[in-house]
Amino acid sequence: MSTVNGSRIRGQVRIVGAGLLGASIGLALRSKGVDTIVSDASPGALSLAIDYGAGRAATDSDAPGLIVVAVPPDQTGSVIAQELAAFPEAIVTDVASVKVLPLAELHAAGLDTSRYVGSHPLAGRERGGAISARADLFVGRPWVIATGNGENADVVGVIEDLILDLDAIPVLMTAKEHDESVALVSHVPQVIATLLAKQLSDGSARALSLTGQGLRDTTRIASSDPTLWIQILAANSETVVDILRVFRDDLDGFIATLEAPTAPGAKRAIAETLAAGNVGVARLPGKHGQDRRFSQLVVMVDDKPGELARLLAEIGDAGINLEDLRLEHSPGTLVGLAEISVLPEVEAQLVAELERRGWRVAEAWK
Amino acid sequence: MSTVNGSRIRGQVRIVGAGLLGASIGLALRSKGVDTIVSDASPGALSLAIDYGAGRAATDSDAPGLIVVAVPPDQTGSVIAQELAAFPEAIVTDVASVKVLPLAELHAAGLDTSRYVGSHPLAGRERGGAISARADLFVGRPWVIATGNGENADVVGVIEDLILDLDAIPVLMTAKEHDESVALVSHVPQVIATLLAKQLSDGSARALSLTGQGLRDTTRIASSDPTLWIQILAANSETVVDILRVFRDDLDGFIATLEAPTAPGAKRAIAETLAAGNVGVARLPGKHGQDRRFSQLVVMVDDKPGELARLLAEIGDAGINLEDLRLEHSPGTLVGLAEISVLPEVEAQLVAELERRGWRVAEAWK
Repeated sequence: MSTVNGSRIRGQVRIVGAGLLGASIGLALRSKGVDTIVSDASPGALSLAIDYGAGRAATDSDAPGLIVVAVPPDQTGSVIAQELAAFPEAIVTDVASVKVLPLAELHAAGLDTSRYVGSHPLAGRERGGAISARADLFVGRPWVIATGNGENADVVGVIEDLILDLDAIPVLMTAKEHDESVALVSHVPQVIATLLAKQLSDGSARALSLTGQGLRDTTRIASSDPTLWIQILAANSETVVDILRVFRDDLDGFIATLEAPTAPGAKRAIAETLAAGNVGVARLPGKHGQDRRFSQLVVMVDDKPGELARLLAEIGDAGINLEDLRLEHSPGTLVGLAEISVLPEVEAQLVAELERRGWRVAEAWK
Repeated sequence: MSTVNGSRIRGQVRIVGAGLLGASIGLALRSKGVDTIVSDASPGALSLAIDYGAGRAATDSDAPGLIVVAVPPDQTGSVIAQELAAFPEAIVTDVASVKVLPLAELHAAGLDTSRYVGSHPLAGRERGGAISARADLFVGRPWVIATGNGENADVVGVIEDLILDLDAIPVLMTAKEHDESVALVSHVPQVIATLLAKQLSDGSARALSLTGQGLRDTTRIASSDPTLWIQILAANSETVVDILRVFRDDLDGFIATLEAPTAPGAKRAIAETLAAGNVGVARLPGKHGQDRRFSQLVVMVDDKPGELARLLAEIGDAGINLEDLRLEHSPGTLVGLAEISVLPEVEAQLVAELERRGWRVAEAWK
């Protein structure tokens, strides 16, 4: 067990790859007093990460007990192999967004993977580099350990300690289950959002002036960095293609229905698709990983310094905790709408408190 | 011109259809002193809207100068025709989400449409009814007037007065341009988000436990009410299908590329698609209808009453106006991340102020 500020991890940790993830792991481990070594093929990136506090440079006398490979997906397999060979006593993990490919590369090379288990923190941002690193990047996020691939029994425990040291939540899956899962919840949504955003390229400025929050939300992740996503999509292509084919078949069916919207059964078919979308959204976990639904209110907020703060201060004064909050601004005006989510049992109290204080409140639309 | 609390609109306004839009228009007009009549085929819905303050019941002596038809899209054409016949002196508009179909129905019936012009407020919520109505529903939102379809010269001016009375922003387009525009920015995104959310229906709970904010945003609008969307999609089916076909061709191409991700040119093709998505997102107008980009910061906020308020109060104390704010919560933890958008010129000041007060701040990732 760790002390309050100490680490579960014992000994040196070597991090290979000083990008967002590697540098964030380094920052977090150093804050717990771990002797953290950073390494990067790019001297400039390495220097930046060290200046940033992510760890110290490697020396010939290093004897890491744990190595974290945090390089782009297409280099992950070969770097794992190098590290296993260079440090014959060390346990090795990686943090790539795909887990089958690196393992397959190791197996194809005939390597013993008993000291290796892959992992993947569901954290990070589309754009990175050490300059974006944060010691708290992983706090509360799921972090998959891709188990069951021939690793020794003690290996998983060490990676769990690492994950707990970073305040993340270990989730055990096989590499295949991981890749199928992230294809569904991350890689396919990335492709679909991208293709939807692509349709906007030729839209007129007048058409786009009618955009609301719905389209902004639907396409937000399409602003992600292509360089990283090329590799992720290429590395998990089979699983992504499997889901995209189902999506395409659904789309084909929907197009065929819409081509004859007055045909018998057409409206029912449209309704069933829309209802299936409702069901899918309802299955997504909300905040805190729970499936619980919150009550939502909309409050009008003048768009000037301090107004939103005053609203939230008064909610805090009432002893009510916000579960979620989103601001929607109306184009061209000085008024914003704050969408507030609270536990259902405090909704009535909150409405009463806010209206008593003169806020304009509307129950949300669902 | 109106007085401060008065209306531009003169005389009686008759609203046909007491749902979210009709009742919201009624509430707003009554707040400006307009004699507002509400009518609905459902006695229950009408009674609710009147109780709610959206207007008064019709009488035999009504002589409305303006009639607003706010019924579902598939009834819009016939109700417009009825109203034109019943009130031969009145100007008529409607607020349906599609504009070509109602007009075509009127022309097909051989009706004189000189007293009619269609319109569409880009406002409202997925779920409605008078109970969700708000006098401020249209504040700052674009409201299209579908001009150039044979209306008399004075008709557009009256609808502009209505829109300005509701604090919305008139946008003049033809019916065809309107339907093409909303197909792109609203109807197609609805279909795509729905089909993406549908893929989640069969996903395992373990897979969905890895969900992040990206997927939640991408699928949020898929929770919309099917009943309304059946009608919208059916009424604008040709234009929606045109865009969906392009999307499908793009998807087919992307699938073909991903089927052979190591083929020559494959990675370039993936990169070009991802880059096209970047371009599309960048074209969306931000807050205030501007294309301007804001600086973004991420601040860690303890998940307890008053903490977010304290943060925003301190931002307000610094005289800095939030341009946008989003909360992201980490599953299973008591820590939230507040993503704050501010004008670029105040970013450095804000970071300094927050860090001085002990907040943990990270510059955002892009």
